[in-house]
Amino acid sequence: MHALLNGEPAADTSFLDRACQFGDGLFETLAVRHGQPCLWPLHERRLQHGCERLGLSPVDPERLLGEARAVCEGRKKGVLKIIVSAGPSAHGYRRPNELAPTRWVACGDWPSDEPWSGEGALRVRECATRLGTQPLLAGIKHLNRLEQVLARRELGEGIHEGVMCDQAGHSVEGITSNLLLLNSDGLITPSLDNAGVAGTVRQLVVENAGRLGLPLTIAPVERDMLYEAEALFMMNALMGIRPVAEFEGHDYKLNVRPPVLEQLHNMCFMFSGEIECNA
Amino acid sequence: MHALLNGEPAADTSFLDRACQFGDGLFETLAVRHGQPCLWPLHERRLQHGCERLGLSPVDPERLLGEARAVCEGRKKGVLKIIVSAGPSAHGYRRPNELAPTRWVACGDWPSDEPWSGEGALRVRECATRLGTQPLLAGIKHLNRLEQVLARRELGEGIHEGVMCDQAGHSVEGITSNLLLLNSDGLITPSLDNAGVAGTVRQLVVENAGRLGLPLTIAPVERDMLYEAEALFMMNALMGIRPVAEFEGHDYKLNVRPPVLEQLHNMCFMFSGEIECNA
Repeated sequence: MHALLNGEPAADTSFLDRACQFGDGLFETLAVRHGQPCLWPLHERRLQHGCERLGLSPVDPERLLGEARAVCEGRKKGVLKIIVSAGPSAHGYRRPNELAPTRWVACGDWPSDEPWSGEGALRVRECATRLGTQPLLAGIKHLNRLEQVLARRELGEGIHEGVMCDQAGHSVEGITSNLLLLNSDGLITPSLDNAGVAGTVRQLVVENAGRLGLPLTIAPVERDMLYEAEALFMMNALMGIRPVAEFEGHDYKLNVRPPVLEQLHNMCFMFSGEIECNA
Repeated sequence: MHALLNGEPAADTSFLDRACQFGDGLFETLAVRHGQPCLWPLHERRLQHGCERLGLSPVDPERLLGEARAVCEGRKKGVLKIIVSAGPSAHGYRRPNELAPTRWVACGDWPSDEPWSGEGALRVRECATRLGTQPLLAGIKHLNRLEQVLARRELGEGIHEGVMCDQAGHSVEGITSNLLLLNSDGLITPSLDNAGVAGTVRQLVVENAGRLGLPLTIAPVERDMLYEAEALFMMNALMGIRPVAEFEGHDYKLNVRPPVLEQLHNMCFMFSGEIECNA
């Protein structure tokens, strides 16, 4: 792993960093192809938005991109991880008056041992672990991720992803991905007002589906809507857009309106020029 | 600061530690008096309970106490902080099969710059930042503390503590403390089924109030109940049990049933033999 801590080649940090103490910060996980971080503008935009939401100064975009490229150099395929935290402080919740944020940028191996890392459609379960209701933190990719850690522990052998519901039982997202449903009216992706992470591939789809002639709705999604969908997709920056083969015993016909998946893949490729959407 | 990382004198850690990546762990903050960590059995019990809830192995109690005493040695007054995390891993939410938990034990200075660290009754506001609804994480002292960090940013000059409400508007706890109300029926402390941290001093009061002839109820608390209380207290391991002088413009008569506060203080002293409850 090639890592930079505030621009210096060092991988270690103090346990007094507020990332360790309180998860006081944000992260981004990007696919790396041929030495380049993919979907950079979308990740950078989300990170800056997260900084604003958490009351942290914006990150210098040029410097961040320079560091990202430096750690990714020569890496044919990998994962770039960025952590931006409020930096070190004494033990209390109060941030120091003079904040010295931490910027950690590291490139590691492609996670070929993850259940979703192969090819083909996904087998999916619903997690018993539900997302908390917290509008103040919904949407951003902050470092408080115990819910995802607990949900991930539920996944059994041969299951690729889990759907997480909110406290009211709505289907919000996957443990590491966003949901996309196709029905006769077009595409639907769950709203993320009270919980969930606004993924970059989701963002790409939201911004561009109209150009494909596929109307997209952002709305609360009931579990039944997953069963009733013509097709169900899960998407994130590493796996791209992947069809779901089975969700809780319900099988999806994978060849229903096949052009839609192709269109989505093309769109991702067209607008990012980068991510590989291996179905 | 005197710190031990897995028993070795080192303060730094990898950013791949799951504490940094996801807040995947727990912490404890203890008062230190005359070289001894105060209320040790209650803190140790909560930590072990937290490990169980998060699916982490129990911590070896003898070893932990030995390390705590080692870092506290010679410290007349200070703060002991313990972090137990799921240890290092690659980037994903999945914990490694062979978990190597991290144990960080450190003693630092008494936080004399915290607004509550002086003497006397507290001036308190209600925070706009609300606690999320998440029964799976309620009660334990886990490392996902962005809500407290955001709430702490709201406290203005001369305000000692903030009351945090849940999503339904119930008063759950202080940013760093638990609530205790006194009314004609006895003591009430808010229930922590959906949000909040079960503090050690709260636990001490819950277990022992009966011996003082003070019936204690654990129940959801509406904001109006705070205004209507004869007396309001806030309590944690560092400040002990402190009376509130004013909450959102409502002044409390601090000499109403003064023996109650004295009784509470005596109880803390009696059952812990350690903590200083400076009113």
